Amino acid sequence: MWPESFRRVLDQLARLPGVGEKTAQRFALELVLDPDLAIELGSSIQSLPETLGRCHLCGNLAEKVAEARPECVICRDPRRNDKLLCVVGRIQDLLAIERSGSMRGRYFVLGRLLSPLDGVRAEHLPLDELLLRVEVLGAEEIILATPPSVDGEATALFLARELAHRKVRVSRIASGVPHGGDLEFSDQITLGRAIEGRRSF
Amino acid sequence: MWPESFRRVLDQLARLPGVGEKTAQRFALELVLDPDLAIELGSSIQSLPETLGRCHLCGNLAEKVAEARPECVICRDPRRNDKLLCVVGRIQDLLAIERSGSMRGRYFVLGRLLSPLDGVRAEHLPLDELLLRVEVLGAEEIILATPPSVDGEATALFLARELAHRKVRVSRIASGVPHGGDLEFSDQITLGRAIEGRRSF
Repeated sequence: MWPESFRRVLDQLARLPGVGEKTAQRFALELVLDPDLAIELGSSIQSLPETLGRCHLCGNLAEKVAEARPECVICRDPRRNDKLLCVVGRIQDLLAIERSGSMRGRYFVLGRLLSPLDGVRAEHLPLDELLLRVEVLGAEEIILATPPSVDGEATALFLARELAHRKVRVSRIASGVPHGGDLEFSDQITLGRAIEGRRSF
Repeated sequence: MWPESFRRVLDQLARLPGVGEKTAQRFALELVLDPDLAIELGSSIQSLPETLGRCHLCGNLAEKVAEARPECVICRDPRRNDKLLCVVGRIQDLLAIERSGSMRGRYFVLGRLLSPLDGVRAEHLPLDELLLRVEVLGAEEIILATPPSVDGEATALFLARELAHRKVRVSRIASGVPHGGDLEFSDQITLGRAIEGRRSF
């Protein structure tokens, strides 16, 4: 039914996260009907790998500059606190924490979480890079900010153990009922954590 | 926060249907982390307008061939019934009907529906093209297959009036409880239509 060139775009679009056959079809048809968008978007997507990469220090998104390894805006900022290092799973999580404005230290992006089901084991985590980063920065506290999911908890636990014999304080982000959340509709694990992690007034 | 080239991709991705800031961010980050996909997808998207366009007869997706106006696979198929013409709103709707295998006639894609709120009025519909198509095919029945929404119904009503004085039978697709649907959870309008459009056993 589909012309060959259209079929190819559909297959490639379906490799984007959360995009299935139907969504790919909607995107591709929109692009056929809007040639300007297709040309502009196609060209910018194509040049993404030339202009952007991962920061060689923390793994965050960074602009590529000639004759130098990419370094992100956070790693370049001298006003950041080197003593505090926040470890996250994905670049998106780093951005979410940045938006909250509550972290003024440095970051380290793991890029993946332990996930036995997906075949991600301890040796796939960038542990050496993390330890090097801790050392170079002279970090005194490591905040493990992987998500409070099964994979995120397993990753945090693994890292906490690996960091235990070093002279750093290791902490874990709080898990509980979210701001504006309803206790009635919170699941049992969330409520359990909210009670367990209670703080004195 | 974002490098300029990344910001541009985000804005362009957000012009795709149903894509907001967060989804655009997920797509763009995936493309940065997967340079192969970025280069392949960017290149295919960019060449879409060169290779694909709308069929000059019915408005369906069609491959562009040198020295000829694009003509789709359905319009090129000599086994199709010229007497039956199915009018749809979008290419996606044509595809959905094709998949059902229940239409062996020709199609006409309007490309838009009457929508006073979005400023789409009668003069924006390709009425002359539709009338020409009816005439050239010698169609005897026009099936109005715009969706059973406010805009789709208004469009069908408008077209039915415009076609009323011509020697063609004009029909409308049935609207009612969908196959496998639950009467308990059907809305009032759907149930009203199911009763109203009942057929004798």
